[in-house]
Amino acid sequence: MVKTRIETDSMGPIEVPEDRYWGAQTQRSLKYFRIGGDLMPGEIIHALGILKLASAQANMELGKLPLRLAEPIMAACREVVDGKLAGNFPLHVWQTGSGTQTNMNVNEVVANRAIELLGGTLGSKTPVHPNDHVNMSQSSNDTFPAAMHIASALMLTGEVIPAVTAMHGELERKAREWDGIVKIGRTHLQDAVPMTLGQEFSGYAALLEDNLERLRGCLPHLYRLALGGTAVGTGLGAHPDFARVATAGIAGLTGLPFVPAPNFFAALSAHDAVVMTSGALKTLAGSLMKIANDIRWLASGPRAGLGELILPANEPGSSIMPGKVNPTQSEAMTMVCVQVMGLDVAVGMAGSQGNFELNVFKPVMIFNLLTSMRLLTDACASFTVYALAGLAPDETVIARHVGNSLMLVTALSPVMGYDKAAEVAHKAHVEGTTLKEACLALGYLDGDAFDSLVRPLDMARPHGIG
Amino acid sequence: MVKTRIETDSMGPIEVPEDRYWGAQTQRSLKYFRIGGDLMPGEIIHALGILKLASAQANMELGKLPLRLAEPIMAACREVVDGKLAGNFPLHVWQTGSGTQTNMNVNEVVANRAIELLGGTLGSKTPVHPNDHVNMSQSSNDTFPAAMHIASALMLTGEVIPAVTAMHGELERKAREWDGIVKIGRTHLQDAVPMTLGQEFSGYAALLEDNLERLRGCLPHLYRLALGGTAVGTGLGAHPDFARVATAGIAGLTGLPFVPAPNFFAALSAHDAVVMTSGALKTLAGSLMKIANDIRWLASGPRAGLGELILPANEPGSSIMPGKVNPTQSEAMTMVCVQVMGLDVAVGMAGSQGNFELNVFKPVMIFNLLTSMRLLTDACASFTVYALAGLAPDETVIARHVGNSLMLVTALSPVMGYDKAAEVAHKAHVEGTTLKEACLALGYLDGDAFDSLVRPLDMARPHGIG
Amino acid sequence: MVKTRIETDSMGPIEVPEDRYWGAQTQRSLKYFRIGGDLMPGEIIHALGILKLASAQANMELGKLPLRLAEPIMAACREVVDGKLAGNFPLHVWQTGSGTQTNMNVNEVVANRAIELLGGTLGSKTPVHPNDHVNMSQSSNDTFPAAMHIASALMLTGEVIPAVTAMHGELERKAREWDGIVKIGRTHLQDAVPMTLGQEFSGYAALLEDNLERLRGCLPHLYRLALGGTAVGTGLGAHPDFARVATAGIAGLTGLPFVPAPNFFAALSAHDAVVMTSGALKTLAGSLMKIANDIRWLASGPRAGLGELILPANEPGSSIMPGKVNPTQSEAMTMVCVQVMGLDVAVGMAGSQGNFELNVFKPVMIFNLLTSMRLLTDACASFTVYALAGLAPDETVIARHVGNSLMLVTALSPVMGYDKAAEVAHKAHVEGTTLKEACLALGYLDGDAFDSLVRPLDMARPHGIG
Amino acid sequence: MVKTRIETDSMGPIEVPEDRYWGAQTQRSLKYFRIGGDLMPGEIIHALGILKLASAQANMELGKLPLRLAEPIMAACREVVDGKLAGNFPLHVWQTGSGTQTNMNVNEVVANRAIELLGGTLGSKTPVHPNDHVNMSQSSNDTFPAAMHIASALMLTGEVIPAVTAMHGELERKAREWDGIVKIGRTHLQDAVPMTLGQEFSGYAALLEDNLERLRGCLPHLYRLALGGTAVGTGLGAHPDFARVATAGIAGLTGLPFVPAPNFFAALSAHDAVVMTSGALKTLAGSLMKIANDIRWLASGPRAGLGELILPANEPGSSIMPGKVNPTQSEAMTMVCVQVMGLDVAVGMAGSQGNFELNVFKPVMIFNLLTSMRLLTDACASFTVYALAGLAPDETVIARHVGNSLMLVTALSPVMGYDKAAEVAHKAHVEGTTLKEACLALGYLDGDAFDSLVRPLDMARPHGIG
Repeated sequence: MVKTRIETDSMGPIEVPEDRYWGAQTQRSLKYFRIGGDLMPGEIIHALGILKLASAQANMELGKLPLRLAEPIMAACREVVDGKLAGNFPLHVWQTGSGTQTNMNVNEVVANRAIELLGGTLGSKTPVHPNDHVNMSQSSNDTFPAAMHIASALMLTGEVIPAVTAMHGELERKAREWDGIVKIGRTHLQDAVPMTLGQEFSGYAALLEDNLERLRGCLPHLYRLALGGTAVGTGLGAHPDFARVATAGIAGLTGLPFVPAPNFFAALSAHDAVVMTSGALKTLAGSLMKIANDIRWLASGPRAGLGELILPANEPGSSIMPGKVNPTQSEAMTMVCVQVMGLDVAVGMAGSQGNFELNVFKPVMIFNLLTSMRLLTDACASFTVYALAGLAPDETVIARHVGNSLMLVTALSPVMGYDKAAEVAHKAHVEGTTLKEACLALGYLDGDAFDSLVRPLDMARPHGIG
Repeated sequence: MVKTRIETDSMGPIEVPEDRYWGAQTQRSLKYFRIGGDLMPGEIIHALGILKLASAQANMELGKLPLRLAEPIMAACREVVDGKLAGNFPLHVWQTGSGTQTNMNVNEVVANRAIELLGGTLGSKTPVHPNDHVNMSQSSNDTFPAAMHIASALMLTGEVIPAVTAMHGELERKAREWDGIVKIGRTHLQDAVPMTLGQEFSGYAALLEDNLERLRGCLPHLYRLALGGTAVGTGLGAHPDFARVATAGIAGLTGLPFVPAPNFFAALSAHDAVVMTSGALKTLAGSLMKIANDIRWLASGPRAGLGELILPANEPGSSIMPGKVNPTQSEAMTMVCVQVMGLDVAVGMAGSQGNFELNVFKPVMIFNLLTSMRLLTDACASFTVYALAGLAPDETVIARHVGNSLMLVTALSPVMGYDKAAEVAHKAHVEGTTLKEACLALGYLDGDAFDSLVRPLDMARPHGIG
Repeated sequence: MVKTRIETDSMGPIEVPEDRYWGAQTQRSLKYFRIGGDLMPGEIIHALGILKLASAQANMELGKLPLRLAEPIMAACREVVDGKLAGNFPLHVWQTGSGTQTNMNVNEVVANRAIELLGGTLGSKTPVHPNDHVNMSQSSNDTFPAAMHIASALMLTGEVIPAVTAMHGELERKAREWDGIVKIGRTHLQDAVPMTLGQEFSGYAALLEDNLERLRGCLPHLYRLALGGTAVGTGLGAHPDFARVATAGIAGLTGLPFVPAPNFFAALSAHDAVVMTSGALKTLAGSLMKIANDIRWLASGPRAGLGELILPANEPGSSIMPGKVNPTQSEAMTMVCVQVMGLDVAVGMAGSQGNFELNVFKPVMIFNLLTSMRLLTDACASFTVYALAGLAPDETVIARHVGNSLMLVTALSPVMGYDKAAEVAHKAHVEGTTLKEACLALGYLDGDAFDSLVRPLDMARPHGIG
Repeated sequence: MVKTRIETDSMGPIEVPEDRYWGAQTQRSLKYFRIGGDLMPGEIIHALGILKLASAQANMELGKLPLRLAEPIMAACREVVDGKLAGNFPLHVWQTGSGTQTNMNVNEVVANRAIELLGGTLGSKTPVHPNDHVNMSQSSNDTFPAAMHIASALMLTGEVIPAVTAMHGELERKAREWDGIVKIGRTHLQDAVPMTLGQEFSGYAALLEDNLERLRGCLPHLYRLALGGTAVGTGLGAHPDFARVATAGIAGLTGLPFVPAPNFFAALSAHDAVVMTSGALKTLAGSLMKIANDIRWLASGPRAGLGELILPANEPGSSIMPGKVNPTQSEAMTMVCVQVMGLDVAVGMAGSQGNFELNVFKPVMIFNLLTSMRLLTDACASFTVYALAGLAPDETVIARHVGNSLMLVTALSPVMGYDKAAEVAHKAHVEGTTLKEACLALGYLDGDAFDSLVRPLDMARPHGIG
């Protein structure tokens, strides 16, 4: 038996666990929304803590909230921000579509904790009221989308971009380190002209560099906050300066340049910055999928695959067969990429479903965006450390593939003419020999002449280095 | 400091927490795959428990596993099935794409628990070895997809179908109860000819009935198990009768008619039954989205909306404004539907990405399928109890809408001719009156004649009841 | 200058090209909906022709349409069905969401052509009226969804299933033909235990067999027609027997067992049979993508790839380099598969967006479904003829991969024990030799003994053939 | 019987229609790729024409192509650019995944037309060779992705952005014009506090403004061209200055600031700029869907809907019922939006599927991107002219909804206290009266006092105008 106390809202009294700070509306939500296993992400609670703190400060500065109430509210908010009240935010993602119940959850917890700090009685709403004081000048309709942006911007700058940057750094390192290793290029999965392994990895690094640019390009839109729009975007009930002052406070607390959204009606009724950021994450996922796939294919084998790369052996691939290393980091990464693409569809569809002054698909949108960010951050970190860092070229195999390649014939054509060059290639193909063997057999060139013409590294760098 | 013991695999020794049954491969996975927050669903662990139990039984019957080892293995498996070993399956969804690490997690836990039951030393692999005995005649490549099917079929029959059936029952009840309430039909969001509220809800019920038929149609494909294919589908290492006997055991334990897949190569390298089942869930989600949307629109208002339905007031909509009830159950439901559609994209894409003898997107596929099942089950249950059961028509508003409708003019045309009927409608439209008022003003009919012609219920049931 | 005549509707007169049969509503749609390049698919026009024909027949039989009008209407409908009036259906997909404008396009063309057959004046609506006679007992709201089902069922049975069946046949042929070719299996892209090339292709065939079963499973739902529901599902304006008689007529004309939908309200307001069929096509696309990918990877090379299959050389891969054959049929196929997956998302989303008595996303749904059917039909046919039929194994490469494989070591373990077997494999791996070479060097077995133990074909068929 | 001539490639001779300029490779593609109905978009042919023109110019300037060949090649390219050779580009979208066949189609047409200009024999490849001269310094692998970017950037700047800008202008006009019309706000589809119709439309305008910013943000990535990378990204076969000079030529011809891609390996093997642009179009589609939905809901009725807006009557909604105007422009728009979201999934998935030095999903990616651009451009134009321009408020209905609203009670609370205000609202709700009637009946205020307190316009603009 859990010990309980009574909390009330306009629907009447309800029992809540004695050792929790939440109130009646949170408790009701627990009853009516037992759907799935996912709770509202901690990043949203954190962002609401920041927002409530800045709002109390702003209301105090603007003369609406007395210091004696503002101080304990702000103290309680700091505890939310610092994660000290974890365990008090039990609500599911699948709740009211405005996120109202989570906004009220934070209001109730902050109010009760502030009451406690003032020596009052939990559930009394005195002297700190969850709506009148903690939610002062606010509505779920503006606080929740503002928290969506705050959480997204913090996670993008603090986690995703650093993780992608680290992976980019490791790819650049490989690109430099392997710049002298000539390998066969492949197009349509077919042997093509040579290039260096460093060039190949420079391509991967370039993909991530472009992705970083795109992710940063999403930030200015995320920095625009709905706070101050209140219920429908008119700002009814808030001080005219509230949006400006409170948003500046959020900027100060986070170190990110948040500003009031230029149009609150748009900011409450659609969340296009979230949709676009999800699209940028999907684009990143596409790049990562390509890179992770290339690496596992290049490491395929050990005998009957391409075998140009050697993966670090993190787990047993086979107890008896040495050299069998399953590309498990690539597998985890590509699964994550597929998931991000699926979640992007849900975000885009949800974003299109707003009606009039409110989009009521907020929780599913932010849950998916933050999930994608978390998955990509973790998968990039894991891949960088456990797949890329220990990755090694198998130079023997790489050289064999170059040496065997018939595409080097293109280097002969300018000297012996197209027809003889084609004859060499044809002979080598039919007889299963190298070009050099065929060329020597036909007597068109001697070995030294062949070697001086067919210089894969020169073909890989036709315009010199750089 | 967690107390540890040493476990080993072919990579060498590794410390694991003393109070857990898992072994070296599980512990390594925890190190290399710290990605996201989602663990492999409990339903998969449960299904693997059933599978390992039936496999041990089959191996014993076929003379490959001695009774003295089979018995403790089966006892340990029963504990897995009964959830008694919860806390021993800590691996993430985002791991090796074959699910090998979760298969090994179960093998290790069962082996250690069986060793314990026999009084042996945890981690000794004696007398019960996780690979040689628990995984006997199996490979991750056939056990994991078999577990995917077992878990899906159990959840579909045990949760999704019952929840949808209950919702269908409630809709049918409303359809019968409200069969006499005539209302305006709406097409293109525009007023159309009349129908009954019961008819409208019979349409919702019919949608779910068709969905139930489709969901059941997925089961025969899910009943086909990969078990017996071992590593690549040839069954190398398994007794020729293993697939048949073990699968029959699974059928016996679950009460569902599982059979060996007709082609193991297909069963390991693609998971189309999962893709198709996800497609059926997506179809269900589309129906549910339509129903939940219709209900919240019909309940919109209370003054400036359609207002034909009254939602149960579960939470405070507004502290001061009575009658404001937010359609939160519809909101949770439609968010769930959008999520299911997004997850379906990930499932379909993952399903297309197999190479050669193995699809290595298994964890993401089954995680999403089971998540969709869980969300739809819970959302249907919640919606049925908290939105549908207490739903009520506002007969005053419904009647006013019918009475105001200009579309009833179609009933006048056969009597007074098209031209006069159109004149009546035009006059009513321009002057903002009812058709009857316009008709009387024009002197084409008296009130009784009008009422005897314009009978909305007859228009709603032109062919009588039923 | 196009010569014109005047047609009229309730909005007034409008000029239409003199040499076309369409009327005012079609002409207006051309003005208001100049969106994109895609026209309403011919299959829908064909299906509406069938439906209008059966409807006229039914109305005549039920005594509502006089023979003298029914006969020319039916004659005109037969011309629509036979494609003789092509060029008269110019409307875009992106029009009114009920497909009303296309329904009216057909009504207008049939009416004018019937008038012409009777010697009347085009545009006079006398003696055949597009609404009163051609559309008698019908509404766009029931004819268009009925036409969606008719077109889908005809294309599924007449094109998709035959094309997939033909591809399945070719795969089965390869499976039988190549049953004796032992090759290396691959899991995680890594060398695994052996199997036969025939087994690999039997897996592909089995995937298609399951897909055919799933496609056929969609038909019963497509056979249920909305015709008879008229505007909102009540059947207002239609004879009580119209649905039954007209639908039976459609069944007779098509040879497919169409029946009236059990609930017309559901049949007008949602199109779940279309969503589910799209899901089945998406599942097929996933299978095809896997097969086409496998084949291009197995044919990769010619020197630095896997090289186990030889593609037919349809186009020049390289003018100078023999043996370079790009897997262009696989590329076309996988692009088609990706497109089908994207279109499926649009279908699913559109299907969820119905409101009240009508879903107004009908054109986009059926356009995408029929496009997916067309693409898959054509791509399967092309792939079967131009990729599969001429596909050949490179038995030299295949044998080399098997011979090189270290995974065959598993066959030594039962004889020489695990430790020595692992030693053999390790030596071979480190020194880059075959297992046999390593085994002989270590002196554990002589050549004959090795050969008698390591029999890849026996490993591929551990339980004998079949 | 079509008259033919003989063309040849490395596969041998083939008959082509005498009156077409294409050559052997185009003809072969027609044989092997009869898939679906969609041809490679004209925008790609146009872009390739520009690219070939600039390339010939660059090769001439760099001394690789003699003036006597460059001039006719450039003349022929100008004809391609000007659309004068339409009918010569018959290839399907579903072809080789590199777009090679379309690149060759353009090469062949330009070569033959240049030969013709020089008085030579079509098919002779003399004196202008499609590969050696028209494709000089190029590969399909760099020309096709460059053409993808050129076509996308031209269409984005020349069509999409202008169409969205025009729609934005119309929305801004409405926002200004309707700024004084007070209406009820709606959240959760429920009546909320008042706002102005102008504010509501300002939100729509703001959404489009943000979308324009996002679309423009995609351009810098599209301006980076792959041209100069040749087959695998090394630039083998091209003059070191070719990329710079040819790209500058393209910039000159288009007036857009194209530059060589900073990393050609990335530019050939992935097309993230296309994926991201598609994501931006999807975000736009989400905004448009919300706007089009809001407008059709606000125009729902005429009697039993919300009825606050009056749509222009473009087509007959009902022949007998005046005032029934179906929101067909909204329907076309929302169908287009759903399609764009589906195509975005295909683009994203295709973008993730590159292998090594080449992504072979180029045609499907660019086909979908250009299709989405075309659909959005046309739908925005249509919606602006045929839905927005003639849109009118029904001020009577709007005022009635405001007058009836119980949410105005919030204005009473500061004066009479929360309890009495709630009592007024409750009485009005229960008795179905207005707040004013209830307030007067309770005797709390007289009519003048009520009117002076309850001023919806002041509530809509709590902080004054602007």
